[in-house]
Amino acid sequence: MENFTIYNPTQLHFGRGVTDTLGKTIEKYGKKVLLMYGKGSIKRNGIYDKVTEQLKLAGAEIIEYGGIKPNPVFEDVNEAAALGKKHNVDVILAVGGGSVIDSAKITALTIPCDDSAWRIMIKMAKPQTAVPVIAVLTLAATGTEMNPFAVLQNVQTHKKIGYGNPLIYPKHSFLDPAFTFSVSREYTAYGIADLIAHALENYFGAGDASLSDKFVYSIIREAMEFGPALLDDLHSYDLRAKIMYAATNALNGLTGYGRVVGDWGVHSIGHVLSLLYDSPHGATLSVAYPAWMKVVKEKDPGRISELGKNLFGTTSPDDTISAFENLFRKLSCPLKMKDLGIDEDKKDEIIDMMKKNKVDGAHFKLSHHDIERIVGLMYSGNQNIYFA
Amino acid sequence: MENFTIYNPTQLHFGRGVTDTLGKTIEKYGKKVLLMYGKGSIKRNGIYDKVTEQLKLAGAEIIEYGGIKPNPVFEDVNEAAALGKKHNVDVILAVGGGSVIDSAKITALTIPCDDSAWRIMIKMAKPQTAVPVIAVLTLAATGTEMNPFAVLQNVQTHKKIGYGNPLIYPKHSFLDPAFTFSVSREYTAYGIADLIAHALENYFGAGDASLSDKFVYSIIREAMEFGPALLDDLHSYDLRAKIMYAATNALNGLTGYGRVVGDWGVHSIGHVLSLLYDSPHGATLSVAYPAWMKVVKEKDPGRISELGKNLFGTTSPDDTISAFENLFRKLSCPLKMKDLGIDEDKKDEIIDMMKKNKVDGAHFKLSHHDIERIVGLMYSGNQNIYFA
Repeated sequence: MENFTIYNPTQLHFGRGVTDTLGKTIEKYGKKVLLMYGKGSIKRNGIYDKVTEQLKLAGAEIIEYGGIKPNPVFEDVNEAAALGKKHNVDVILAVGGGSVIDSAKITALTIPCDDSAWRIMIKMAKPQTAVPVIAVLTLAATGTEMNPFAVLQNVQTHKKIGYGNPLIYPKHSFLDPAFTFSVSREYTAYGIADLIAHALENYFGAGDASLSDKFVYSIIREAMEFGPALLDDLHSYDLRAKIMYAATNALNGLTGYGRVVGDWGVHSIGHVLSLLYDSPHGATLSVAYPAWMKVVKEKDPGRISELGKNLFGTTSPDDTISAFENLFRKLSCPLKMKDLGIDEDKKDEIIDMMKKNKVDGAHFKLSHHDIERIVGLMYSGNQNIYFA
Repeated sequence: MENFTIYNPTQLHFGRGVTDTLGKTIEKYGKKVLLMYGKGSIKRNGIYDKVTEQLKLAGAEIIEYGGIKPNPVFEDVNEAAALGKKHNVDVILAVGGGSVIDSAKITALTIPCDDSAWRIMIKMAKPQTAVPVIAVLTLAATGTEMNPFAVLQNVQTHKKIGYGNPLIYPKHSFLDPAFTFSVSREYTAYGIADLIAHALENYFGAGDASLSDKFVYSIIREAMEFGPALLDDLHSYDLRAKIMYAATNALNGLTGYGRVVGDWGVHSIGHVLSLLYDSPHGATLSVAYPAWMKVVKEKDPGRISELGKNLFGTTSPDDTISAFENLFRKLSCPLKMKDLGIDEDKKDEIIDMMKKNKVDGAHFKLSHHDIERIVGLMYSGNQNIYFA
């Protein structure tokens, strides 16, 4: 086991009605609140009203920045930061899924910094402080509500990158499973694929961390047991709660302690697809993971078999990979490029962009040949009948 | 799933040589350090020298309180607190196992409070603040290094009670698995029994918390896979690390989130034995748990079967209980009162004390008849041949 430090300062409030105390929490951070959200679904499902009522109870002055895209871009963050700077905001309230909360995190660093969001993310600027972020989560997927990470896109330079900084742990996150009732079947499924992929990225990292491995199995089993049921019962509070809590644990540190590093090769593959075709993040991962495993099984068959033994009772790498394909099929997630609506004629463009963006894992190094094979495997074989 | 809040502010430093930065951490809290430790093993195994060297590097003034007993008593805490008050200490450094760290936690509350340690624990005094506690752990068992709990004895009133307060989370805990090398085979085993029991107390609580259940299985499996091997190889860094990290997770909150409450009935049984006969805490639990399960299987056979299915692949409550007895046997832990050196003629005294101390669980309520049966079962049947 490698040395590690556990310190996660986020206060996570989980359950029915937890936002009833949001106003009291916000108050402690000040009166001027930058309220960030996405394309407006929170106005349709009533969450916007609940949250702004809390802000009014707290006597807050609300400065709004809405319209953040599902694959968030750094330009929005620069704009939000300019607004925050102009109004000298005390705190950012992010209401949404990963795209909104990630944007809020980088906004929090950009406001007090004399530099742009993108330069912070590529580490050309070193922020020393951040505006406090409070999150209200409306989509179970990325785990951003309890971690120091954010992912943004730069469409000009064709980059989608991740960034980490302990300054951007949310101070508080409010997770009411009922706030995810209106998430569509499709995006609920993509969220589940995302949480499974997060657990796997740590599993496929380097180093012996047997308890963290077992936590990976626990989280993926939770998705296996309750994910398909949730897709048939989108208004089940209990199923929403189970998936929401599993997603938080999939990327709050728990699956990584004691490892040298996670892998994250599959995420870097998925990011290229989102960048090129605006594909939903979770949907790219259910296509990429089985293909990636088919290449990685030659590098380390034992690691894949171990995973299969613990999750599915399978004994070979091939059976493990088939079991994952079946799981994603049951979850109505895309399995092939065609399920994502990406035709065969894009293959070369994708491979070129992957090479250009240095798609790679931290543990399992991917050669150009590996990348070509992975992309090929993402095209070949059976689609998910749900999409076909 | 019940509503819950996750907030664990302890910074946990885990791994080889982590105390090399202890001095720098201590410095941030002040110059006057109350150093608390136990019966002197840290002087024999060199940990005392390492720690005091760090304190000297930090330019600290060291005020020592040693001699804390393995079943710690509140009188020691009152004395330590008087010493801390007299010297106006800035921070407490607790170097030891659960007894030392628990004593330090209550000392931290008693120093700034105009009342006694025991009155704080029985909630007759309400402390508003605490001296910061920093812990260096030398025994993997209780999980106190990352939680807000402490357990102390009052020999006069025949009580051993637990106490919880968010003020007493250690600010930092340093866990170097090599610091546990000199723990005897016997006490290493009792520590493993303790961590298993902690996971079980949460498992047997009330409410549906499926991911927390899976974390329970993960932690106990870790003890099953690596506990017996560690007892044959006490200087294995890796095995010490696995058990140490499992023990932390068994009682840092992770196994409880989403439940109504844990049970803790078995702990209250064990506490009576420690109180009457000074039996080691972990050793009382391996005797009490199987007996308790034999009574509780009638109240909820399904819950015990579910546990067995997930840990041992067993299908009946009886087979599950036998599998636990086998596990404790493999771990060279006591199974019967005779293994603890407590003769049959003490039975009535024990039952009386259990009734007097209101031995009970928060979920599975124990009648007087249940208690009599449990104590009977702790005497009857096969001893562990390791002790017989």
